[in-house]
Amino acid sequence: MVSRDIMRSTARGFGKYYSPAINGEMRLDTNTNVLGSNPAAMRFIREQMTEINDYPSTYSDGLRSALAGLYGLGIDNFVVGNGSDEMLDVSFKTFTEWGDECLVPYPSYTLYDYFAKMNGSRVSFSDLTDDFQLDVDGIISSGAKMVIIASPNNPTGNSFRRKDIEDILTGFGGIVIVDEAYGEYSDGSMIPRVDEYENMIVLRTFSKAYAMASLRIGYAVANMDLADMMNSVKIPYSLNSLSEGAAIAAVGDQGFVERSREMVLRERPRLASGLSELGFRAYPSDSNFILAESPIDHSVLTDSLKDRGILIRDFGNKRRTENCVRFTVGTAEMNEKLLCAIRSIMEEIG
Amino acid sequence: MVSRDIMRSTARGFGKYYSPAINGEMRLDTNTNVLGSNPAAMRFIREQMTEINDYPSTYSDGLRSALAGLYGLGIDNFVVGNGSDEMLDVSFKTFTEWGDECLVPYPSYTLYDYFAKMNGSRVSFSDLTDDFQLDVDGIISSGAKMVIIASPNNPTGNSFRRKDIEDILTGFGGIVIVDEAYGEYSDGSMIPRVDEYENMIVLRTFSKAYAMASLRIGYAVANMDLADMMNSVKIPYSLNSLSEGAAIAAVGDQGFVERSREMVLRERPRLASGLSELGFRAYPSDSNFILAESPIDHSVLTDSLKDRGILIRDFGNKRRTENCVRFTVGTAEMNEKLLCAIRSIMEEIG
Repeated sequence: MVSRDIMRSTARGFGKYYSPAINGEMRLDTNTNVLGSNPAAMRFIREQMTEINDYPSTYSDGLRSALAGLYGLGIDNFVVGNGSDEMLDVSFKTFTEWGDECLVPYPSYTLYDYFAKMNGSRVSFSDLTDDFQLDVDGIISSGAKMVIIASPNNPTGNSFRRKDIEDILTGFGGIVIVDEAYGEYSDGSMIPRVDEYENMIVLRTFSKAYAMASLRIGYAVANMDLADMMNSVKIPYSLNSLSEGAAIAAVGDQGFVERSREMVLRERPRLASGLSELGFRAYPSDSNFILAESPIDHSVLTDSLKDRGILIRDFGNKRRTENCVRFTVGTAEMNEKLLCAIRSIMEEIG
Repeated sequence: MVSRDIMRSTARGFGKYYSPAINGEMRLDTNTNVLGSNPAAMRFIREQMTEINDYPSTYSDGLRSALAGLYGLGIDNFVVGNGSDEMLDVSFKTFTEWGDECLVPYPSYTLYDYFAKMNGSRVSFSDLTDDFQLDVDGIISSGAKMVIIASPNNPTGNSFRRKDIEDILTGFGGIVIVDEAYGEYSDGSMIPRVDEYENMIVLRTFSKAYAMASLRIGYAVANMDLADMMNSVKIPYSLNSLSEGAAIAAVGDQGFVERSREMVLRERPRLASGLSELGFRAYPSDSNFILAESPIDHSVLTDSLKDRGILIRDFGNKRRTENCVRFTVGTAEMNEKLLCAIRSIMEEIG
C-alpha cells in the first residue's frame, strides 16, 4: 500500500465524486435538459464528422468565432475548453499562487472547493444571507485573491442581485469569477459587460440548456487581456474536434435553447406550487431546478423516490440546507410523476 | 491593458503553442497515423451515438474496463482522461508541491516543461548522452521529485534501454513517468510491470497509432494505489462520452493498430535510406517518425517543403538538434513524394 503522504498536501483528503449507479431511473438529480439531446449537435455528429485523425484547432477558433457572433464580442474575449470545469481549473492555474486564498460563498457548488485545493489554494467560505444573497461587505473586505460567484446559484437556485455583483467587481481586489452555468434560464448576464471590468471572468457551459453534457464543453468570457493569459495557460487543443463541431452547430440553433428556457419558465412555478401543496418549502429559483425543504426526512424521501425510479439530489445533511433536496424541473409529465410519487411516499409513511 | 503581473509567477512567460495555418498540405509534422482515421471509432460515431444530454461516466469505467482486458490488468490500474496531456497535468497535481523539482531529459517533448511550470514546479534538464540515451546516474542522484521519460523519445525517435529505466525506477526517490505515446511502434512496454513498482506511471495516447488525435483520449497505468490517488484528483468525467465510446470500439479492433505498426516498420527503413542517400544523417528510430540532420539549412528546407505543400517539424534552432528536422514516416507514396520534393529543393539551391 502506497501512502497518500506522497500526494500534494492540499489534495490528500480527496475522495471520489458523485457517481450513482444508474438503472433506467428518471433523472431529476443533475439539472441537465429534460427535453433531451441537442438536435443540431446530434445531426452534426451523425452526418458531418468526416475524420478524427488530425489534432483539433489549438484554441478552438471555430467555436470561439461562433460565440463571438452570438454575443457581439471579439473572438479574443473567449477561452474554450473541456467543460466549464476546465475553465475553473485554468482560472486557478492562471491567476493564483500556492497558498492564495479563494473565497467561495456558502452554500454553493461543491466542486469549487475541490478546484481550489487541487491547485494549492486555501478556501474560505462566505455565508450567504438568510435570503441566500451575497455578503457583499464581507467579500470586499476579505482580502482574498479570487472569489467565485455562481449566479444563478447552485443549489439554492436564485440569482444574486445585479448591484451586489457590480459592487464586488469594483470593490474586491482580486479576480471575480461569475459562473453562469444556468445563465440561459435567467436574465441579466454579465457577458455583455466583460470589457468594462479588469477582473471579471464569466463562465458558461453547454451541459445544461444546450443539452450536451456528454460532450464536455464550456467557455470563459473576459476582457482580451485576461482571456489571452488564460489561453496561454490552457492545455492546447483541450476541446476535441467533435465536441467543437457539435457546439458550433448548437450555437446556430438558438431556437432549441429558447424552447428549453420557455419550458422551464412554464413548468417551474407549477412544480413549486405542487411541492408547496405537499408541505415543502420551495425556494425561489431562476434556474432549471428547485431547492426545497422537505416535510419528511430528506433521506427517506430521496431513497423512497429512488425505489420508485426517480433520482433527486439530497442536500439535507449540509449546513444551511438542512432537510433540503434539489429537484430538476422536468416536463409537465415528469413533474406530475414526481409529485404523485412523493404523495404516495407521504401516505405510506403516514 | 491588464499586466501579466497578476498571473501565476511560473506561468507569466507562456506564449501560444505550435499552430500552423493549414491549407491542404501533406502533414508529416505531427506524427499522427498516415493511414487516416480509425475505422472502428468512425463507425461508432456515425452509427452508435444515440444521445449527448447525460453526463459521461465519472471515471470512464467502460474504457478502463476495455483497457484492463487488453493488457490483462485490473480496471483500477487505469486512469483515463482528455488526452495524455491531461494525465501529465493530473500527475503534477497529484504528486507535486509548489516549488518541487521536476527532471526532464533533454532533448525531449517540449510540453513537459510547460506542464511542470503551469503547476508550480521547477524544471531541471538532464542532457541525454551522445547517442540520445539517459544519464542514469545523474537522474538517480538528482534528488528531484519527479522525472518524465518519453520512451520512445520525441523528437529523437529512439527507445531508452530497458535496463536504464529499471535502474531509475529502483534508484530514483520520486515518481517516474514513462511516456509511451509512441509505444505501439516499439517493443518492451512497461505497462505489464506497473504492479512491480511503487513509483511508476506509464502514459499512453489514442492520438498516434490509434489515429484518433481529434478526440483527445489518453490514459495512465500504474499500481492501484497511485491510480486511485490520480483518479481522486482528476476532474470528474473529463473524458466525453463520444470519445470514450469511440476509444472502446478502437480497442476492440487491434487489427488496425497492427496494420499501422507494420506499415511504419516497413516504410521507416526505406525513408531512412532515402534520406541518407540525399545526404541526411538519420537517427535510429523506434517510432513513427525520424529525426535527421539536414545537409542544407533546416529552415530553408522546412520553408521550401511548405511551399511544395509538405509540412515537417523544424528542430534546427535548438541545442543538441542543430540543423535537424523531424519527418513523420508516411506511406510509400507519401515518402516518395517527400524525397522527390527534397531532391528538387537541393537541386534548385545547387
